[in-house]
Amino acid sequence: MRVAILAHEKFPERAKTALGVLRYADYDVVAVLDRETAGTRVNDHVHDVQDAPIVTGMDDVEAQVDALLIGIAPIGGGFEESWRPDVRTALERGCDVISGLHYFLSEDEEFTALADEYDCELWDVREPHDDLTVSQGVASEVDAEVILTVGTDCSVGKMTVSMELARDAQEAGYDAAVIPTGQTGIMIEGWGNPVDRVISDFTAGSVEELILEKGNDHDYLFVEGQGSIIHPAYSAVTCGILHGAMPDKLVLCHAAGREAVHGYESFPLPSISTYVDLYEQLAEPVAPARVDAGAINTYGLSEEDAQATVEEYEAALGAPATDPVRYGTDELLEVLL
Amino acid sequence: MRVAILAHEKFPERAKTALGVLRYADYDVVAVLDRETAGTRVNDHVHDVQDAPIVTGMDDVEAQVDALLIGIAPIGGGFEESWRPDVRTALERGCDVISGLHYFLSEDEEFTALADEYDCELWDVREPHDDLTVSQGVASEVDAEVILTVGTDCSVGKMTVSMELARDAQEAGYDAAVIPTGQTGIMIEGWGNPVDRVISDFTAGSVEELILEKGNDHDYLFVEGQGSIIHPAYSAVTCGILHGAMPDKLVLCHAAGREAVHGYESFPLPSISTYVDLYEQLAEPVAPARVDAGAINTYGLSEEDAQATVEEYEAALGAPATDPVRYGTDELLEVLL
Repeated sequence: MRVAILAHEKFPERAKTALGVLRYADYDVVAVLDRETAGTRVNDHVHDVQDAPIVTGMDDVEAQVDALLIGIAPIGGGFEESWRPDVRTALERGCDVISGLHYFLSEDEEFTALADEYDCELWDVREPHDDLTVSQGVASEVDAEVILTVGTDCSVGKMTVSMELARDAQEAGYDAAVIPTGQTGIMIEGWGNPVDRVISDFTAGSVEELILEKGNDHDYLFVEGQGSIIHPAYSAVTCGILHGAMPDKLVLCHAAGREAVHGYESFPLPSISTYVDLYEQLAEPVAPARVDAGAINTYGLSEEDAQATVEEYEAALGAPATDPVRYGTDELLEVLL
Repeated sequence: MRVAILAHEKFPERAKTALGVLRYADYDVVAVLDRETAGTRVNDHVHDVQDAPIVTGMDDVEAQVDALLIGIAPIGGGFEESWRPDVRTALERGCDVISGLHYFLSEDEEFTALADEYDCELWDVREPHDDLTVSQGVASEVDAEVILTVGTDCSVGKMTVSMELARDAQEAGYDAAVIPTGQTGIMIEGWGNPVDRVISDFTAGSVEELILEKGNDHDYLFVEGQGSIIHPAYSAVTCGILHGAMPDKLVLCHAAGREAVHGYESFPLPSISTYVDLYEQLAEPVAPARVDAGAINTYGLSEEDAQATVEEYEAALGAPATDPVRYGTDELLEVLL
């Protein structure tokens, strides 16, 4: 599939979804739309991802495109009216539009009319499908080994770690797949459930459904975790994923230097061993799992500091750990596969 | 408020909501509708609740009624078409209709038309309001002492225990209120959030909102818990309530003889001390709380067995415990207030 990615005024630093898609998705990215960096190329800014021209808008995309993907999200998740001409042009050219915004494109009258007229699909990845239900508690019955990334906080790299582990496992010849539970993961993989948007009673069920769908087709499933089990606002989602996925192994993800809950600074993070105990003890009565490995994001640290940080984290964890983006995933895959 | 309660063919054993309202609500119940037991009175079947005549349908209710309350739920939570004439008659008489069904009366064309015509309200208590959002992590800032019922499983009496404790505290002269989180509690109290139906990201936030609304008007808030922290399907809701309510004290509720998760019999319940550790350790990083008391449902046990069961539970818990319905709440209130 050939996609254009909308990232106006935010590429690359504040375009997490766009970067995730450029880095991990199988799509052929034909252009990035960003009024501010237009005229440059993706690889002028970021090196370890596929390259593409950066243009001002859909009018400047000459290549054939199957879908326009909204690769950024303003605070609040609304739709920026300045993007409307790009979405309109995309639909008029017969492109589907994929969005992870809180604002659903499928509830926008102009877009639904255009989608009808030009026979395109509006895919709001944050809109849960209608058939979700409660968990049956059977995810552990699938053939695959299920490996879940859990975190000390939000935004510590759970999605990235899941993607890196699955990709490297595949490259090493293992039959591995990702189970996407958030909007960026869903956009990268092209399927999944937005677990943070489902009815709370269906949280575990929405993950179980994904495991059952792929669990007998692969040897390893890497489940994208969300939040943290002690997050003041989001722990419900974390707990539902832990019990719905019924994982065999856990990978604890952390960000170097993080000392308090992001955005909730009055809540200090407890010790790493507290997290290990909590995740393992909470998993035990439903499906026993151990924290068999750790991942720590050392972005911005010097080489020396990064190495020291990884060693310290590994000692606190009592299990192999690394920064998978900086040092690769070999050490982790050795204990996980 | 004068209410009639619909409980066709299910009163009293299978009419949990009807019984809860008869027992705990401030409403004046003028009639129970039950085709099967019509002609008898509520107190012919149940003694410790307010009395009312049981009649065949709304046509036989001669007293003035402000609201018809649907006091039963079929498996699946649908609307039984045989109830339609009663709802229709109620609306035509100007009564509001209160329902905890999954099927929303406010989406039924006939009912909405009648409600418009006769100026009545259709209140679907399971429909979350539109302004819910994520928790800010500030519930602990309210003046009130917050006491949360937590459970070893679903259906172990958390709603009943919350109601008994609050009522007895009020009768003893304390300024106490209930924070309702499920449909029966919401119907009894006339307000609340259906925490199991909200968007999963808003689970904690929907409880926090309730605490903030009442937390500076009372000295004690008894929060109705849901599910269990190791429930394969519902633990997300339990976890969200624990972190959203930020309670000061926990009351662990259990049902005598329960050995496996209700409806999920392949999952044995762990030891009582495992629950205590899990709830306390999970609460700690967000808002520290201890399991200061326990409640156990000994319904159906002989007096001798009930006493032995309470003693055994108390020993396992390491805190005062009782069956509040059988023995009253004095022992529990002594440690909680």
